[in-house]
Amino acid sequence: MSAVQAPIKVGALVFPGFELLDVFGPLEMFGLLKERARITMLAERAGSVKSSQGPECVADAALSGDHGLDVLLVPGGIGTRTLVLNEPYISELRRQCERARYVATVCTGSGLVARTGALDGRRATSNKFAFKWAASQGTSVTLVPKARWVEDGKFFTSSGVSAGMDMALGLIAHLLGRETSVQVAQWAEYTWHEDKDWDPFAALNGL
Amino acid sequence: MSAVQAPIKVGALVFPGFELLDVFGPLEMFGLLKERARITMLAERAGSVKSSQGPECVADAALSGDHGLDVLLVPGGIGTRTLVLNEPYISELRRQCERARYVATVCTGSGLVARTGALDGRRATSNKFAFKWAASQGTSVTLVPKARWVEDGKFFTSSGVSAGMDMALGLIAHLLGRETSVQVAQWAEYTWHEDKDWDPFAALNGL
Repeated sequence: MSAVQAPIKVGALVFPGFELLDVFGPLEMFGLLKERARITMLAERAGSVKSSQGPECVADAALSGDHGLDVLLVPGGIGTRTLVLNEPYISELRRQCERARYVATVCTGSGLVARTGALDGRRATSNKFAFKWAASQGTSVTLVPKARWVEDGKFFTSSGVSAGMDMALGLIAHLLGRETSVQVAQWAEYTWHEDKDWDPFAALNGL
Repeated sequence: MSAVQAPIKVGALVFPGFELLDVFGPLEMFGLLKERARITMLAERAGSVKSSQGPECVADAALSGDHGLDVLLVPGGIGTRTLVLNEPYISELRRQCERARYVATVCTGSGLVARTGALDGRRATSNKFAFKWAASQGTSVTLVPKARWVEDGKFFTSSGVSAGMDMALGLIAHLLGRETSVQVAQWAEYTWHEDKDWDPFAALNGL
């Protein structure tokens, strides 16, 4: 267990074309911690942000600034494809990755973080349907093809979409102990894939 | 398979204190249908609506009116406890349940729909941690204690929080065929609990 003090301050990044479940799956799990977690939605600017699927959410604050985050959550989604080309955005994301105690990615969110250079020299994973794209964003990232999620220091990178929920429970276990994650999963009536090496989707995609 | 024509028009109800994953789990699955589904967020009034967990989403339109919905998605969350006492709201929800081709509930959303009377004489299920509350909202609803989700005519009612994803895939299978749901689950890297009678959480709660 880590020494992070409750409440755990979670900042969830959203951008046009973010994938809904990448964000709200992990936030459900952190949200079930009630007063033990505090969630802030972050975007390039405060205001409404449209997802890949259409529904919009509201960013509470701009990404830039010091949010004192314990966890920076970086989702994937089709919007990542243009964001990796936005140099000021990538620079700011790099700063925020340095500031946060933990960086958690879902799906192609690891490609976005890889682009900042923050994953250089580290092991990570990503969506199995867009694996080559994510792998191509960093210069010296060891992309693990078969993993529900990968932990390397402060970086928790997960596989596609629904894997974010399993990773979030893994991170909660790391921060608050396994029993807390088991309890959260029961409240969500969710069967936690607790083995981070469990990944039937790698083979389905020839990985 | 049903005769609903694509795109499937999905209206997702949100209210203050809605549960995040109840809404965005099913919407991820419908969203992965791309042009075969169209999602509208509905609330008492258009504008931002705060979830149980803190993050806000944006309602595109007011619930009242004729939205021509194929699927009305009704989530649960702590906000249901006060909404069941709001008679004009419950009356409007009853009208919308009558208008929609299918009504899909997650968690205590079935309690909200039960309160309208729309579930009278039908079988339904709900969150296993708030089961008695949901059961008490209708006068003649047969609440099924052990079920991931229950199908009765146009009503697809699911168990707590994460069960909404399994139910959504069940409804997609009903509308577009099983192979489509299997494909959507793979895209989401989600292990679909396809057996709607699978429910390890009932026994955990003494049901």
